[in-house]
Formats: sequence, C-alpha cells, structure tokens
Amino acid sequence: MDKPEHHLFVCGSFRANGTPQGNCAKKESLRLVQYLQEEVDSRGLSGVMVSMTGCMNCCVNGPVVVDYPSGHWYRGVTEEAAEAILDAIENGTVAEAYLVPN
Amino acid sequence: MDKPEHHLFVCGSFRANGTPQGNCAKKESLRLVQYLQEEVDSRGLSGVMVSMTGCMNCCVNGPVVVDYPSGHWYRGVTEEAAEAILDAIENGTVAEAYLVPN
Repeated sequence: MDKPEHHLFVCGSFRANGTPQGNCAKKESLRLVQYLQEEVDSRGLSGVMVSMTGCMNCCVNGPVVVDYPSGHWYRGVTEEAAEAILDAIENGTVAEAYLVPN
Repeated sequence: MDKPEHHLFVCGSFRANGTPQGNCAKKESLRLVQYLQEEVDSRGLSGVMVSMTGCMNCCVNGPVVVDYPSGHWYRGVTEEAAEAILDAIENGTVAEAYLVPN
C-alpha cells in the first residue's frame, strides 16, 4: 500500500460506543473532516490522507488536527486554519499560528 | 501538552455519521481499542496513546493499527498481535510479523 506523506487526524470526539460528543464534535469537527477531504481532493494532494478519530484528550484546544508522521498538533482548526495547514503542506512548511503550545 | 512517543490508531471503520461498520468494526476492532488501552495502562506505558479512527482505507488488512510517528501499519491485529506490538514498543523494535506489506 502507499503510505500517506501526511496523515491528518481530525478529532471527532467519538466515544467507544460511536457517539460523537464532546468539545471537538460540538465545534463542527465532523464538517471539518469533510471540508479537509474536499480540499485535499480539489488540490490533488495525493500524499495526504484524512481520518477522523475518537477523543484525543486535547479538548480545550478543539477542534484539533494532528499531522503525522511530522507530529504537528494544530488547535482551533476552522476552515481558514484548514486552508493554512494544507498551504503549509504544499509549501513544505508548518502552520505555526495554529500549533498547540508545548 | 505531552506528545505521545507512540500514537496508536485503531481503525474503527467509522463512517461520517458515526456509525461503526465495515471490515475492521466487524472484526472486533472496537473491543481491540479497549484491550490496547487496558494493556497500555497495565504496562505503565505513559508515552503510548490509543485512538480509534474512521475507516483508513485498508479494509482488506483489518483490523488495522497504525503507529505514528514511526508510521508502521499493522494488519490482522488480534489481541495476540496487540501484545506483540506493545512488546515491540517496549523493546524499541517492530512487530515485523504483522506489518502491512508494501
């Protein structure tokens, strides 16, 4: 299989029973997954994969997106932030303004 | 925040509406998430985080677990395989027998 160069994980706050709840889901993270996927397709970023996840224990920063294998955690990811993250991926940089503080 | 040294993503086959279905979910991947988390807690692996995800498009190999940032994709992850993966993490090695073929 082709492994993604950037695997974007969008917190969907899923609990073990499949119920989307919690901070990220409340902040429209499910719509964000769809938005990111559409943007990835539209830009033709074949090396980028988008997955949604259960709660990643970073609720105060939600909606949260993690980019692996780089390991960059992004916070407060609106559609504008999503664009900045994809711009950074295209440019080989990092969307500094949205990084979760260490 | 403390970033995980090993972030294990277990495919839960979630669709956008939150419904767990598909190959990994059928193969008890939701129970696997719980099993992995309990083993991580039991072993005291503080650098390991377990998250479940939506479908990762690797259904034929399910249940699938990805370890980031190392980027190792594991297939057919039973409880025995989960133990092997955690053993490998503890030993700084890779659970070769369960790697998804390139």
